[in-house]
Amino acid sequence: MGSMSDESTNNGLSVPGETRGKVINCKAAVVYGPEEPLVIEEVQVAPPQKMEVRIKILYTSICHTDLSAWIGENENQRVYPRILGHEAAGIVESVGEGVVDMKEGDHVIPIFNGECGDCVYCKSEKTNLCGKYRVNPMKSVMDIDGKPRFSTPDGKPIYHFLSTSTFSEYTVLDSACVVKIDSKAPLKKMSLLSCGVSTGVGAVWNTANVHSGASVAIFGLGAVGLAAAAGAKSRGATRIIGVDINKDKFIKGKAMGMTEFINPKDLNRPVHEEIKDLTDGGVHYTFECSGNLDVLREAFLSTHDGWGLTVILGIHPTPRMLPIHPMELFDGRKIVGSVFGDFKGKTQLPHFAEECMRGVVNLDEFITHELPFSKINEAFQLLIDGKSLRCVLQL
Amino acid sequence: MGSMSDESTNNGLSVPGETRGKVINCKAAVVYGPEEPLVIEEVQVAPPQKMEVRIKILYTSICHTDLSAWIGENENQRVYPRILGHEAAGIVESVGEGVVDMKEGDHVIPIFNGECGDCVYCKSEKTNLCGKYRVNPMKSVMDIDGKPRFSTPDGKPIYHFLSTSTFSEYTVLDSACVVKIDSKAPLKKMSLLSCGVSTGVGAVWNTANVHSGASVAIFGLGAVGLAAAAGAKSRGATRIIGVDINKDKFIKGKAMGMTEFINPKDLNRPVHEEIKDLTDGGVHYTFECSGNLDVLREAFLSTHDGWGLTVILGIHPTPRMLPIHPMELFDGRKIVGSVFGDFKGKTQLPHFAEECMRGVVNLDEFITHELPFSKINEAFQLLIDGKSLRCVLQL
Repeated sequence: MGSMSDESTNNGLSVPGETRGKVINCKAAVVYGPEEPLVIEEVQVAPPQKMEVRIKILYTSICHTDLSAWIGENENQRVYPRILGHEAAGIVESVGEGVVDMKEGDHVIPIFNGECGDCVYCKSEKTNLCGKYRVNPMKSVMDIDGKPRFSTPDGKPIYHFLSTSTFSEYTVLDSACVVKIDSKAPLKKMSLLSCGVSTGVGAVWNTANVHSGASVAIFGLGAVGLAAAAGAKSRGATRIIGVDINKDKFIKGKAMGMTEFINPKDLNRPVHEEIKDLTDGGVHYTFECSGNLDVLREAFLSTHDGWGLTVILGIHPTPRMLPIHPMELFDGRKIVGSVFGDFKGKTQLPHFAEECMRGVVNLDEFITHELPFSKINEAFQLLIDGKSLRCVLQL
Repeated sequence: MGSMSDESTNNGLSVPGETRGKVINCKAAVVYGPEEPLVIEEVQVAPPQKMEVRIKILYTSICHTDLSAWIGENENQRVYPRILGHEAAGIVESVGEGVVDMKEGDHVIPIFNGECGDCVYCKSEKTNLCGKYRVNPMKSVMDIDGKPRFSTPDGKPIYHFLSTSTFSEYTVLDSACVVKIDSKAPLKKMSLLSCGVSTGVGAVWNTANVHSGASVAIFGLGAVGLAAAAGAKSRGATRIIGVDINKDKFIKGKAMGMTEFINPKDLNRPVHEEIKDLTDGGVHYTFECSGNLDVLREAFLSTHDGWGLTVILGIHPTPRMLPIHPMELFDGRKIVGSVFGDFKGKTQLPHFAEECMRGVVNLDEFITHELPFSKINEAFQLLIDGKSLRCVLQL
């Protein structure tokens, strides 16, 4: 643990309290239109309002949801100029009125799927979908006044993204979207818990509740799929089958605990038939991390009838309905969705962070590249080209 | 309980053991082609072979699966001549080699979804789908020799249906498909546990595990839907909403514990919007008992996001896939199928029968008509016309 925390002593705030209540001028990566290169430029960040928190971002990385938003995949979500980014870690610079669970200097990670703690959803043990702050790609302003906290030096609005907007040296979030973690936790790695790693590990731990000795198949070996493998290994799953059309991904998969690998391109029959033969009728659990509906059907059929469970993690931006016949549900296979790994962010991520510090999940494996913030467009390209798992930008 | 068991003292076997090992000549209702009237005629019933049981049927009723088979809905299942029927109760006449859990004179009910007790499915707590004897509408002969036990007086084969063929004074079943119940249990009512009532109550008790204080909506108020209502009431559900396009069905629904009724025809908006308004966001559980996919979608959307569960009980003979978008699963609503109420027949029905004797479910409410076996075609017509819930035939 000593070696893991060496970077976290620098909290990045030269004089704590100095900027409190003031507008901060800093650098941010602003996007002005679909697929237009991000522009690193000076922005103004207003002080946090009631129940808001302003944080200094120290590390941020890029995930596919940023990419989709950058491409402008969903027309309704095209709002410009905008600051993207949702995987990050940083330090609280100041807090708005009413925030009592965090203070200046606290180590935090932003979460796009917030937890107000007060609504019927937050009070239920069955869901992590907050009634007020659940993931909302349409949201681009703060709730309390319907305005963004970002602006150009001449005062024009710059919009928020996923309640986080971490591609900025400073950002403002609802306190429901900020998780305080152990001050000894290494922030660079902890940034991964903002999205992909929590999504994958949580789907295994919380949504599926994979049991020791279980057999598991994971479809799509990006960061989320690899995190699911790490989660399954930590639960004691004895067979962890990786499925991907890119065989190079198995190298990392093996490091994450995968025991077998299937490349659908190498088969002359459907993947589910192969998996059924390999596992005496199908695996206990499958995780769909590819965002492809045909893959989803293979994942569904690859579980054992009677008790198999498929968890969908991949985003499916398609008009197609579930490719499952209603009568197929009578075979006892189940399928469920999982958002942010069913983690209640503020309540449960601090413990998950501790587990990661103990080495339960090896976060280092996910960081394939590191670049300075100024090279954010390069980082985007690495993800587009499939070259990086996670490229962490240092601000 | 005294009054409930008065009929069961007559076991219908004049001299026990008299017919053991011999072919029995008796009456059966034989179907010769799609929608052709059933013919009550003399058939021969061979003695039970290894692990088989021959039972004397005392009561049988007709359920929609018999109707579908009679109509010949599924071309692959058209096998004639055939003896239909799967809801019944009777007395063991004789047992084949190796049967040790039943003996002559035992009170039994047939189950179309058998339980061998030995396979990986039967040994799992998670499913009631036996590896050998799960519901199979294609099966028309006995496993051990691939032959039917029924024949015409001149020796031509007559085929089985759903492993039960209860429209006969005597029938032969795999012992995995015969459940021994308390000899004090009233057989007329117990016949209902062979299918519809167990399916509805079990979906609530076993599949959904409805909690006390829960809100429930049931779509389709036939015998299965009404049984689901009775099951929900017994679990302490406080709101049980019945949904049907026939308002007359609410009379019986109320008797079964329903607290509210919605007729979609009376609304100028989708049912799920009405239910959401009535229940502050949706019910905890919905049960789809109509076999209609558009209704299924309404049932799915009528549950509360975050934790709602929809159980499909209705048979959906359609090429259409599930009318649910993959992204809708991220709202935390779940949907599962339930076969025979997830009851493991041989293990769990005896206890359920006792619960019914204690009055947990009022079986009398389901029996709307009673006719002698000779009037079986009349009983079919009552079901076709929607006039009967269950018409019990006495053999």
